[in-house]
Amino acid sequence: MDYDSIFKAAIDKLHEEGRYRVFVDILRTKGNFPNAQCFGGNGPKPITVWCSNDYLAMGQHPSVIEAMELALRDVGAGSGGTRNIGGNTHLHVQLEEELASLHGKESALLFTSGYVSNEAALSTLGKLLPGCVIFSDELNHASMIAGIKNSGCEKRVFRHNDLEHLEELLAAAEPETPKLIAFESVYSMDGDVAPIAEICDLADKYNALTYLDEVHAVGMYGACGGGISERDGVADRLTLIEGTLGKAFGVMGGYITASKTIVDCIRSYAPGFIFTTSLSPVLVAGALASVRHLKASSTERDMQQAAAAQLKAKFRSAGLPVMPSVTHIVPLLVGCPVKAKRISDILLAEYGLYVQPINYPTVPRGTERLRFTPGPHHTAEMMDELTSALVEIWDRLDMQAAA
Amino acid sequence: MDYDSIFKAAIDKLHEEGRYRVFVDILRTKGNFPNAQCFGGNGPKPITVWCSNDYLAMGQHPSVIEAMELALRDVGAGSGGTRNIGGNTHLHVQLEEELASLHGKESALLFTSGYVSNEAALSTLGKLLPGCVIFSDELNHASMIAGIKNSGCEKRVFRHNDLEHLEELLAAAEPETPKLIAFESVYSMDGDVAPIAEICDLADKYNALTYLDEVHAVGMYGACGGGISERDGVADRLTLIEGTLGKAFGVMGGYITASKTIVDCIRSYAPGFIFTTSLSPVLVAGALASVRHLKASSTERDMQQAAAAQLKAKFRSAGLPVMPSVTHIVPLLVGCPVKAKRISDILLAEYGLYVQPINYPTVPRGTERLRFTPGPHHTAEMMDELTSALVEIWDRLDMQAAA
Ligand SMILES: Cc1ncc(COP(=O)(O)O)c(C=O)c1O
Ligand SMILES: Cc1ncc(COP(=O)(O)O)c(C=O)c1O
Repeated sequence: MDYDSIFKAAIDKLHEEGRYRVFVDILRTKGNFPNAQCFGGNGPKPITVWCSNDYLAMGQHPSVIEAMELALRDVGAGSGGTRNIGGNTHLHVQLEEELASLHGKESALLFTSGYVSNEAALSTLGKLLPGCVIFSDELNHASMIAGIKNSGCEKRVFRHNDLEHLEELLAAAEPETPKLIAFESVYSMDGDVAPIAEICDLADKYNALTYLDEVHAVGMYGACGGGISERDGVADRLTLIEGTLGKAFGVMGGYITASKTIVDCIRSYAPGFIFTTSLSPVLVAGALASVRHLKASSTERDMQQAAAAQLKAKFRSAGLPVMPSVTHIVPLLVGCPVKAKRISDILLAEYGLYVQPINYPTVPRGTERLRFTPGPHHTAEMMDELTSALVEIWDRLDMQAAA
Repeated sequence: MDYDSIFKAAIDKLHEEGRYRVFVDILRTKGNFPNAQCFGGNGPKPITVWCSNDYLAMGQHPSVIEAMELALRDVGAGSGGTRNIGGNTHLHVQLEEELASLHGKESALLFTSGYVSNEAALSTLGKLLPGCVIFSDELNHASMIAGIKNSGCEKRVFRHNDLEHLEELLAAAEPETPKLIAFESVYSMDGDVAPIAEICDLADKYNALTYLDEVHAVGMYGACGGGISERDGVADRLTLIEGTLGKAFGVMGGYITASKTIVDCIRSYAPGFIFTTSLSPVLVAGALASVRHLKASSTERDMQQAAAAQLKAKFRSAGLPVMPSVTHIVPLLVGCPVKAKRISDILLAEYGLYVQPINYPTVPRGTERLRFTPGPHHTAEMMDELTSALVEIWDRLDMQAAA
């Protein structure tokens, strides 16, 4: 048994397929987003970041920073325990109340990340409902897939956002079988949006529970940042809404909101919630400030939407292959992992522009892309600079531009 | 299908068994550990915390707080992305180097928690080794059990710290079968320690890989805080060492250290690592300061060991049923979930002393206990106060004191 050669072969495979990942080593500088420092080579060099999921730059917002400084000074660095053993601070309780109210639900529960919230909530729901069948959108995030797998439930995958297919699968299951439909609101790699109301109609018709991942929409959509479900006025129709504190809210952590009973079940039965040190009070304080700010202010959302529309327009008029996105996400199709990486490397090395290539397994093979996330602080000049750089590289690599 | 009654029944079951968990709502106050505020009832009330896993009070250490303040001011609140997409900061790279060096390994990898590091590393190792059998100590933590389950590997459970049983199981497997032995150094609910060197001897004899969880030992044992494996001089014999940044290091997050190839495999293949926002740079900066401080200073470790010895001695001479522990953990056996909760409730309500009852599933039924973690700032007076309170309650509840 030669362990080493097995592990080496696993790495070689990635190199051969051109999808071995090299992490770009950066340091964003507060007050200066989207600018950052890039390390490696000949010391730090200034760059502009075009692929942050801190969509609204809340990670540098004064109210967030101040709240975290205060918690750091008053409460300390970590929570020192699991939620049950010494790690339940008053800040956790307050943030859970705030998140429940954001989504109009009775209760909320914090997790160390959005990934863990999906894994823990889905696996626990499935385990508690004997014989449950989970209906899962084919493009669901890895964390939902992990949760569904670990639930031990039977899974039926419906074609992406395809209501007819979903109904077909629901109708084929026994009426008395417990059912759960799991899907996302904004699909982050394409920027399209689920028909939430119509999925809720089907859930009503077939007596299914609904589980919505709003990770890329919370803070971003709806009058208070409650996500697409708030914007569409359907939050109350969903059994469970899941979100993250690490993207538009600019900090780190995840959560679910639902009825008191369901949240209590997950709180009481999910190993991924129970057996881990709770979120640092510093993060909780920052997230609380961020959620509260974005409940009251739409400025950041409006600026971000304007920036995304502007960048899409500039890409389109330059003939770059923008993928169809109805949201704040701006993906450019490349269709080859090696080329996607090459473009990204040139952008960084020659232009100081940072966008990460998105390869399999994050997106299906053959749809490799560059994914831009313009924020409220990307200026028209920065967009022009980016667009001409891309046009130059597209020419240099002899790539087909869109008509 | 009446979903609500199923969920309600799951909660009722916990109430009936006396193990429904109510989180005590506290706020530790920096500069003042182990003192804290307890919320609920008639507003905040001062308490002393006896069950924090911030064992060395590093969560209030000036060097940790300063490093976090600096990162907050310079870098911002969150990382804004996964490690691969914009969330790889220079601080992450530095902390990984520091952790690799702490354990004398080539590489390290950060995760959002110790739970996630165990789940992600064990499940990925198992998936990469075709036909692997995992030998798991029966008292392994829930996060290791989750990782082993999700690896899809066959699992053989050996009796706790029982070398003969482990050897029996190893010998029974085919010589050519890949094998991994997974265990902990300090078992946190009993405070006993694994025979690491002897387990490594067996691993050599049967050509097995070794996976050691040092979550309750990092920062606490060894000249530099490298854990029991450093203290025993066997770190280089282990394939992989896993730890947390959320207990003795006082912050939050988890990590593994191993050879470059193994770390690269887990970095490249583990969904729990890949598909999640990376640790906040603020936490990373705090952990970096904490690890560096505890590498150089043994003061906190020495004070904590002295406090633990003193508390054990006081409990013993008062006739309280201290469980045998060779480490910094001081468990008192109660043996009944209802009584354990009752004692804890009285301590908090009448004496302002906070210790959480430890019930199933954290420990086996019938071994319910109170688990005390005295730290460097618990004084002899505090210990006397605690001891007499316990003696009074033991009398009041008519409990058998040890001879
Ligand atoms: C749809 C979706 N759900 C969940 C997550 C996980 O959230 P977090 O980064 O907070 O772990 C992500 C991305 O990271 C995501 O894209
Ligand atoms: C043995 C052991 N491993 C892992 C963990 C998880 O570490 P973390 O709290 O960082 O998630 C814990 C406790 O929380 C533990 O006791």
